[in-house]
Amino acid sequence: MAAHTVRFRGTVGSYSYSSVLVNKENRAVGSVAVTGTFHIEDIYPCVNNGRFPIKRIVGESVDVWADIFRDGHDIIAAALIWRREPDHEWRRVPMHLHSNDRWTASFTPEELGRYIYAIEAWTDEFATWRHGFELKQKAGQELTLDALEGAALMTRAQAGGTEAAKIILRQCEDYLRTGNVASLLAPESQEAMAESQHRPDICRSTLFPLIVDRPRARCGAWYEMVPRSQGQDPTRHGTFRDCIARLPDVAAMGFDVVYFTPIHPIGRTNRKGRNNSLTAMAGDPGSPYAIGAAEGGHDAVHPELGTIEDFRAFVAACRRLDIEVALDFAVQCSPDHPWLTQHPDWFKRRPDGSMRYAENPPKKYEDIVNPDFNCSDAASLWQALRDVLLFWVDQGVRIFRIDNPHTKPLPFWEWAIREVQSHDPGVIFLAEAFTRPKLMKGLAKLGFTQSYAYFTWRTSKWEMEEYLRELTGYPERDFYRPNFFVSTPDILPYHLQSGEPWMFKSRLALAATLSSNYGIYNGFELLEHEAIAGKEEYLNSEKYEIKVRNWDQPGNIKPYIRELNLARRANPALQQTSNLRFVQIDDANVTGFVKVSVDSSNTVAAAIAMSGEPHEFWFPLSDVKVKIGNDFRQVVAVENLLTGERHPVEWGGLRVRIDPARDPALLLRCLA
Amino acid sequence: MAAHTVRFRGTVGSYSYSSVLVNKENRAVGSVAVTGTFHIEDIYPCVNNGRFPIKRIVGESVDVWADIFRDGHDIIAAALIWRREPDHEWRRVPMHLHSNDRWTASFTPEELGRYIYAIEAWTDEFATWRHGFELKQKAGQELTLDALEGAALMTRAQAGGTEAAKIILRQCEDYLRTGNVASLLAPESQEAMAESQHRPDICRSTLFPLIVDRPRARCGAWYEMVPRSQGQDPTRHGTFRDCIARLPDVAAMGFDVVYFTPIHPIGRTNRKGRNNSLTAMAGDPGSPYAIGAAEGGHDAVHPELGTIEDFRAFVAACRRLDIEVALDFAVQCSPDHPWLTQHPDWFKRRPDGSMRYAENPPKKYEDIVNPDFNCSDAASLWQALRDVLLFWVDQGVRIFRIDNPHTKPLPFWEWAIREVQSHDPGVIFLAEAFTRPKLMKGLAKLGFTQSYAYFTWRTSKWEMEEYLRELTGYPERDFYRPNFFVSTPDILPYHLQSGEPWMFKSRLALAATLSSNYGIYNGFELLEHEAIAGKEEYLNSEKYEIKVRNWDQPGNIKPYIRELNLARRANPALQQTSNLRFVQIDDANVTGFVKVSVDSSNTVAAAIAMSGEPHEFWFPLSDVKVKIGNDFRQVVAVENLLTGERHPVEWGGLRVRIDPARDPALLLRCLA
Repeated sequence: MAAHTVRFRGTVGSYSYSSVLVNKENRAVGSVAVTGTFHIEDIYPCVNNGRFPIKRIVGESVDVWADIFRDGHDIIAAALIWRREPDHEWRRVPMHLHSNDRWTASFTPEELGRYIYAIEAWTDEFATWRHGFELKQKAGQELTLDALEGAALMTRAQAGGTEAAKIILRQCEDYLRTGNVASLLAPESQEAMAESQHRPDICRSTLFPLIVDRPRARCGAWYEMVPRSQGQDPTRHGTFRDCIARLPDVAAMGFDVVYFTPIHPIGRTNRKGRNNSLTAMAGDPGSPYAIGAAEGGHDAVHPELGTIEDFRAFVAACRRLDIEVALDFAVQCSPDHPWLTQHPDWFKRRPDGSMRYAENPPKKYEDIVNPDFNCSDAASLWQALRDVLLFWVDQGVRIFRIDNPHTKPLPFWEWAIREVQSHDPGVIFLAEAFTRPKLMKGLAKLGFTQSYAYFTWRTSKWEMEEYLRELTGYPERDFYRPNFFVSTPDILPYHLQSGEPWMFKSRLALAATLSSNYGIYNGFELLEHEAIAGKEEYLNSEKYEIKVRNWDQPGNIKPYIRELNLARRANPALQQTSNLRFVQIDDANVTGFVKVSVDSSNTVAAAIAMSGEPHEFWFPLSDVKVKIGNDFRQVVAVENLLTGERHPVEWGGLRVRIDPARDPALLLRCLA
Repeated sequence: MAAHTVRFRGTVGSYSYSSVLVNKENRAVGSVAVTGTFHIEDIYPCVNNGRFPIKRIVGESVDVWADIFRDGHDIIAAALIWRREPDHEWRRVPMHLHSNDRWTASFTPEELGRYIYAIEAWTDEFATWRHGFELKQKAGQELTLDALEGAALMTRAQAGGTEAAKIILRQCEDYLRTGNVASLLAPESQEAMAESQHRPDICRSTLFPLIVDRPRARCGAWYEMVPRSQGQDPTRHGTFRDCIARLPDVAAMGFDVVYFTPIHPIGRTNRKGRNNSLTAMAGDPGSPYAIGAAEGGHDAVHPELGTIEDFRAFVAACRRLDIEVALDFAVQCSPDHPWLTQHPDWFKRRPDGSMRYAENPPKKYEDIVNPDFNCSDAASLWQALRDVLLFWVDQGVRIFRIDNPHTKPLPFWEWAIREVQSHDPGVIFLAEAFTRPKLMKGLAKLGFTQSYAYFTWRTSKWEMEEYLRELTGYPERDFYRPNFFVSTPDILPYHLQSGEPWMFKSRLALAATLSSNYGIYNGFELLEHEAIAGKEEYLNSEKYEIKVRNWDQPGNIKPYIRELNLARRANPALQQTSNLRFVQIDDANVTGFVKVSVDSSNTVAAAIAMSGEPHEFWFPLSDVKVKIGNDFRQVVAVENLLTGERHPVEWGGLRVRIDPARDPALLLRCLA
């Protein structure tokens, strides 16, 4: 047989790592490396085994679990270690054995940004020695040699702080001088040795990434505003100043975020006319998604909206009202975009040298061209796109709604989001991907802070509950933060097309309570519902024309929106999505659920009608507990979040009635 | 902002791999690499995400599944690739889209050994072009440029074989000459391009390991033989020749494997006496697990058993009866083992220079010492242990039962099993680890072919069913092959201590039918059940003395054992463990289940009583299907495997009666 070699695995932190790795000479071992002494397995939380980051909010605890074991019966120890990227110091906290070789520990990231966590395990040789010593002592065995062996372990301790070193030295010398084993067995010796002992077999798990976002990533009510339509004169293009004038109205409705459709110069070549017609009439403004013209590209503002100073004034006006600005980021360019002449290499040409327009055969989009992310000059294209984002960050924008991210390369987003967040870790990215479920989840995994969801098309109780169970279950809850939009400029769902107020309210209440992130598109508050016949699209969409509205039109549901948003602000249970549990309501068109805040201090029970007739039903509350101080107590009463009325809970629940014509939602704070 | 660099990811196989990786200069990207264009996720089968191998039997299909997607709407393609380690060529098979971005393909390893499999995905640019072309053609669009673009794709094809290249060249030239797009759209162009086209964005998943074992790894009935007790003269030590004389009896019972407890020279220092007493009397043989004496160590045979030639004769005698030999591999050494003087560095000493005996405080095992796997000369120790295994492989032994592997370092086993199997991939390792569940599973993951299990202590119906569901579920079924022992020299479970024949038969039938690998310890067939009072241990254990038995003692259950083993041999459904489904039997002490062979050709329904009184119950068979040719048909009759009687299946099941006094098991082959 051939000779063999031994390799040592170097060092981990300040410890030498002596796990022996023996390979047969002249023969490939294959691609599976020999592991260390410990198996550190089934680590929770993680996404794709650590390939992608989990997500948390700053100040939220990260509770980590893992199976940790080695051979034999020695006592082992483990630590959860974590650090902020890229180059902060490791921090560590001891892990505790829960049961069945499963260990746990928690840490709380106190700053925004990217983190890495991992697990270290090693043999607690001193505790093993001490445990054996005490058993032998009880059995009355001769222990001189055993005591010396314990002292010998002490002399090898070197990893801890000076205080521990002093204790170890003192206790060890005390034993050697007096022969009194009590010095070796003292709790302070145990503690100092737990910190300081030599750890020749320490092993570290693979590294797991974590993104820590600001609270706005967890919760926000969005108002999608099309700036061209915020004026009051149908012959005049709306401006940023008009938008500023709208802000008190938006703030009164209780929104946290105003999201602008694209604000950049709009191309003239092949401009789309009203209702997406192929030819624009004189004066037609074109689609704001055909980005770029002689006036500039992605880092310019459309002259008819105003100047960049006007935009900054808008951001400042929002800030005074505690509202954030979200911008649309759409990669595509109009044929007039400056990049087409500045960077012809970024765009594909056809065999005759003509421009390759966007298409989805047999449909052609001749008002836009897509840059080629894999072109030979890809690096400068990627950088330019990132720099557009950073430009707007510099203008005070910290939220981006990314248009159709699922039609651009996934590695681009992973890179771009990381780049922007390494500049400002508070920047939020919302993925507007309405596509196949796994691609939507794939985008969420690679770094999007929030994601559009199928809410818009979930209309029956069973499909809504099934969908929410999926999004709030594992592993989705660790990486997918849904943002529920009741409608968008592109989507007027069929169920809204008859314009019934109860349906608008029901959809609003579902979105606003099931998901802590939700949004409406301007006009929803006015029950706008005129569709292109047979399609889920708005007729006379303001994507292609300027609209003027009476924002106080009779029949509007602005007071209802305000009530819901204020209830959200007052109840932390509604400021998160994942702590959600459906309850059994014996009505096929009423969904009932209970949400609990991250800190367990606030519990809200909700029932929402999904059909228009009155509903009377039993709301079971017998297994709802409310946290008072450190205790969990049985709910004894509920308070209606909108009316303030209180009702006692008797016989483990509540008989309730919902009349959707008045209010399809019943929101109850649970009291104990 | 800083400048950036672009890196290309080299080549994969024969394809260039152009996924762009852009990093910001002078800033660490962190430990998470930017991925390729494709996400290849949730790959099944795998163990710990590919850290450990899955296991299959040669000729069994490996069905692989994965979520595969990229951005956008382009048509993609994927291949399952695999190769035998260490250095065989990759083989590949196309994957097919099942639904919801989940793809699948299978391969069948035809040789023993270690394999690696992985998934490659790329964009099928030509199929994408063709799909778009046909849609535009239907819409009546002008297509001259589109056709040229298809031809251009053809000119870049270079990856396939010469036949494909010829087709592509011919079709492309034909189009360019005639302008007839039919040449581009022809199915043969499509096929040739699927094989040959340029794949600039090809991505490969991580690699997943696979161990392919021989059929004996999946199924075997084991007979544990203590060679010292195979003689017929109580004053004489049993010999290999005595063991040979026993073989016809063992073969008649239908066993596939004879497993020998250790056969090496036994130490004299601190030798244990009868019933594990601390001092041996003159003539006491000592524990065969105290390995090594002046006559030799792990590669020697105990002189009282005979010579190495006698052992070889035993192996040859077994082979003639189609029986395999399994040897015990116990690492520990007696204080007289030659290694203690040849390699003093392998053993720990105490502060006074004395030997460190094995201990489990406060218990001491002064007849054995354990080598130190982490000693400074660890490489030579690991090699020596491996060489012991290879020595016995050279003597014709291809099965090892590893004694207490859970008290030796896990990396040692991963290395040693790989080493031995790289010499002979047919060698089977059975882990005798009765320890905590995750450590037992950990050993199975790192390479043990089979594992002891908790069967011996699962006595109620619910716990037996729960345990089998665990072992046959995912992911356990892919790495854990249980071997159910009804008893061992160390374990006489309480339920056998009253010696009731029905209980012995019930345990035998449960072991032999629930698990395709099972074993008995010699004497079980004679209903031996004399225990040390209050313990699950045999009184007068032959671990410490020589026993002589009448192997044809009245009341023995050898005929029953034979019947069960022959039923196993005749029914492939019983030759595997994982295809197992419990059925509802309305009797708390009868377990019922259905097993189907790997190829679905054989279906066996079983009901086994776990209490002694007669049972009468309904065996539901309405959802049992039987494969006839390529069809699955409803079961219409059953045949009793032991009696040969046939019964029609009426009203979706069978009313049956079990009298455990006669036979606690009912085994039925399902017929259609």
